[in-house]
Amino acid sequence: MPGSSSQPEAWILAIGNELLIGRIVDTNSAWLARRLTFLGFRVRRIIKVPDSLEDIVEEMRRGLGRARVIITTGGLGPTYDDKTLEAVAEALGRPLELNPKALKMVEEFYSKKNLPLTPEREKMARLPKGSKPLPNPAGAAPGVLVEHNGVMVVSLPGVPAEMEAIFDNYVVPELKKIAPPMALWECSTVIEGVPESGLAPVLEELARRNPSAYIKSHPKGHEVLGPILDVRVLASAPSEEEAKRLAESISEKIASEAERLGGKVTKRSCGHPD
Amino acid sequence: MPGSSSQPEAWILAIGNELLIGRIVDTNSAWLARRLTFLGFRVRRIIKVPDSLEDIVEEMRRGLGRARVIITTGGLGPTYDDKTLEAVAEALGRPLELNPKALKMVEEFYSKKNLPLTPEREKMARLPKGSKPLPNPAGAAPGVLVEHNGVMVVSLPGVPAEMEAIFDNYVVPELKKIAPPMALWECSTVIEGVPESGLAPVLEELARRNPSAYIKSHPKGHEVLGPILDVRVLASAPSEEEAKRLAESISEKIASEAERLGGKVTKRSCGHPD
Repeated sequence: MPGSSSQPEAWILAIGNELLIGRIVDTNSAWLARRLTFLGFRVRRIIKVPDSLEDIVEEMRRGLGRARVIITTGGLGPTYDDKTLEAVAEALGRPLELNPKALKMVEEFYSKKNLPLTPEREKMARLPKGSKPLPNPAGAAPGVLVEHNGVMVVSLPGVPAEMEAIFDNYVVPELKKIAPPMALWECSTVIEGVPESGLAPVLEELARRNPSAYIKSHPKGHEVLGPILDVRVLASAPSEEEAKRLAESISEKIASEAERLGGKVTKRSCGHPD
Repeated sequence: MPGSSSQPEAWILAIGNELLIGRIVDTNSAWLARRLTFLGFRVRRIIKVPDSLEDIVEEMRRGLGRARVIITTGGLGPTYDDKTLEAVAEALGRPLELNPKALKMVEEFYSKKNLPLTPEREKMARLPKGSKPLPNPAGAAPGVLVEHNGVMVVSLPGVPAEMEAIFDNYVVPELKKIAPPMALWECSTVIEGVPESGLAPVLEELARRNPSAYIKSHPKGHEVLGPILDVRVLASAPSEEEAKRLAESISEKIASEAERLGGKVTKRSCGHPD
């Protein structure tokens, strides 16, 4: 993993039967994982669970004992199978309560559409006691943030546009308060003519010597000179200066070792990874 | 979940740091989940874990106590961070052994490219004792199948083309031996003019009455008449006849209830879900 084990740990729970029957590819988790990584968190688990109270509570409880941050996606809507808040409340041992701020958000969303507040819609404003509702600029269900015994639990809708809007506007500022100082720098070295397994001992040795860098080779096909590899080095450090120095020195070593093994470096680029 | 709780449970472990830093969207898990669901398994967990022995072993052990099938993806390659087989061996309490059949597969792959068998490449043939190697038509690392105390553990490469080829050619026949008789039928009903929360109590009631059907509404935007919903009904039964009858009768009820609520059914279609 990039960074040190002193980085705060983050878990992502993606909730929804549709994920477990493979109807939907979960793009939310990768989007969140990238954001969390760049903020300085170490994402240790991404878990997809069905819309079942028992399953969500089980994974929430595991995360509560270990993570600094748990982000859930999905299961906040008005339908019978949206069980996330009930499960979070149970895992935290807090009752669900009608939250006046959340109720106002839900009411306003529907009144703009001239729709009444039914019990199903009101359910979206019943939050675990002590929660803070997060405005949803793109839909009905507010996000929910609750701090519990040193763990920040954030529940977001499963619709990507809603999840992303709430995260960027209302969750990032909260995460920045608890994130460590951390900068990232990434270098890509494209090598032709050295098979992945030939370069493996070199990368292994570099990874061992540089625990705060994440080194990974990605096979990219075959060309005239043989296999093409894109070797990525993602370095993290308290300052960008240091991250840059680390990533670039490692990728220079990779390039020279690849050439020693008879390969040709066809492209090298470094930059801020986003 | 579609089907009953008597369906054998399947877990998917997707292994790789790149998944947890969000560099890669994990499409393998959804692909596998869909295949497993159609074969009659109930996918209960999809878990992404980093390339860390401790983390992989932890999730393997949880799955071994509960699942009938565990499929892992990723971590079979020649590089230092490919730790899947070591972790599977540890979780099963079996030693890693050089498997002669697997060694032959790996040797043949490299000899066709006039490449020697290095220790890194040989590592791909060191399998948990008692494993069966599965030929990889698209790459170097064989898949691995091992039966352990009534659990089928299958390890596949992370490269989608390799994973899919091994699964369809060598894993599906093994899974069919333990899969229950099950057929699926799916109906889609597109409704305009009824908000999701308005239809929620109807769907809740239908889901309660039909535990072997999975009913889910997907918001699809807004049109002249108001919100558009695609309500999917996925029914499972021991025969296709029964699955068809169930899915179609539920979707007819949804259509008539939607019309009662002032909505308009703009499209209905049913078929085998693939």
